Amino acid sequence: MNPNEAKNSEANIEDGVAERSFEIEVAGETIHGLIWAPEGARGPRPLLLMGHGGGQHKGFPPMVAGARRYAATMRYAVVAIDAPGHGARATPETQARFAAPFRQPVEPGKGVGTRALEVMMEIALQAAPEWRAVLDHVQSFDFVGSAGPVGYLGVSMGAMNGIMLAADEPRITAAALGLAGLRDEIPQLAEAVGRLRAPVEFAMQWDDELVPRSAALALFDRIGSAQKTLHANPGKHAELPMFERAGWVQFFARHLGTGA
Amino acid sequence: MNPNEAKNSEANIEDGVAERSFEIEVAGETIHGLIWAPEGARGPRPLLLMGHGGGQHKGFPPMVAGARRYAATMRYAVVAIDAPGHGARATPETQARFAAPFRQPVEPGKGVGTRALEVMMEIALQAAPEWRAVLDHVQSFDFVGSAGPVGYLGVSMGAMNGIMLAADEPRITAAALGLAGLRDEIPQLAEAVGRLRAPVEFAMQWDDELVPRSAALALFDRIGSAQKTLHANPGKHAELPMFERAGWVQFFARHLGTGA
Repeated sequence: MNPNEAKNSEANIEDGVAERSFEIEVAGETIHGLIWAPEGARGPRPLLLMGHGGGQHKGFPPMVAGARRYAATMRYAVVAIDAPGHGARATPETQARFAAPFRQPVEPGKGVGTRALEVMMEIALQAAPEWRAVLDHVQSFDFVGSAGPVGYLGVSMGAMNGIMLAADEPRITAAALGLAGLRDEIPQLAEAVGRLRAPVEFAMQWDDELVPRSAALALFDRIGSAQKTLHANPGKHAELPMFERAGWVQFFARHLGTGA
Repeated sequence: MNPNEAKNSEANIEDGVAERSFEIEVAGETIHGLIWAPEGARGPRPLLLMGHGGGQHKGFPPMVAGARRYAATMRYAVVAIDAPGHGARATPETQARFAAPFRQPVEPGKGVGTRALEVMMEIALQAAPEWRAVLDHVQSFDFVGSAGPVGYLGVSMGAMNGIMLAADEPRITAAALGLAGLRDEIPQLAEAVGRLRAPVEFAMQWDDELVPRSAALALFDRIGSAQKTLHANPGKHAELPMFERAGWVQFFARHLGTGA
């Protein structure tokens, strides 16, 4: 790693978890990341990539709380970055661009509009190589290393980003995804879903106003992985039950183990 | 409890779990049951009813192993009985009657034949009042009592029996079910599913040759409970992954707690 390309901060310790920020350059863009690990961690351990949802960012408090729990109780390293146009990368233009398609009323049963889908797909296509460079970068840290297994966790836009990454990234050996669906307007997503090979736990909301039920079921059906599990619960897009988040811990413990 | 109606055996202790057998009379039929509890257990605790599948019986080894684990690690009482025409209640006639409809080849995508479905529905309708009498009986044991919560666990025919029981049994406050579906030939099942109110975790197999995918999804959709979760995995009827069985422990821990 060329020191001109990466800036890593000192660790900020809180409740036994060390948080570091870093920046790397990818294709002319600055990628801003946060990484959490147990205080004093040394040597390889499972690494969990966390992809935030649309309109959120790497410091979205519920995601950070989850990241800290994985570091504290599972002794994982956990990394989050700002997606294109989000967080430190947001400008009035990108914010307007990403927000506008969502302001339109959703037709019952139809899900988000075509323009919003296309915007998220553009983000996912850009995010995949960025995530790959971030994975290279953080595996150079001595408390991560390249010997430990790698998982991905993200729902909604975070799931789309994770699918486009994991389809071509054999280092990812388990993915917890959800709140996304196949739509004719974004055939690239279906194609990538079919190339997934890692075990997947996929969460859908039975009454999701943004993702039609049939689109989510079609996505699960198309996942190419031999091991895949669908979890469905009643409720809307933002109403994923807390026990599903607890269940992800079981899923990753099964597939990534725990850190030493 | 009239001592003429019930016969309870002495406890048989193994690995810290006490197993007792009992018999009660219900509508002129002798119901044979087994009940497991932690060795030396006293006072109320969560009670789990386990319903076996078609062609199995109360002593089906994988079910008994599960029952013993709930008793040992969760400190539950667990009860299993022979369904009508099964186990101690099987005769050459009932065995032939229950086996014959299953011998016919299954048409792809169609699921089990109408006659087999009707036979299982008859069993479920008879099993529900039997289970209710068993629940009354075992709640009279001092190591069970009536103050603890009650759960039901059963898949396939065991799920049909559980649905017909739980729909009219408010003592059941959590049910793990699966491998069943709604079919036009058995409208009583759909009706009962709609009356469920307890939290349900429902497991389906995505490639179930006996339960069409659409029938299982329709059953989940129809469940009347506000809290319900669908778990779907690839594979056939008999291929439910072991991690789903582990997941039931989390489900019951959430809803029934653990024994003292």
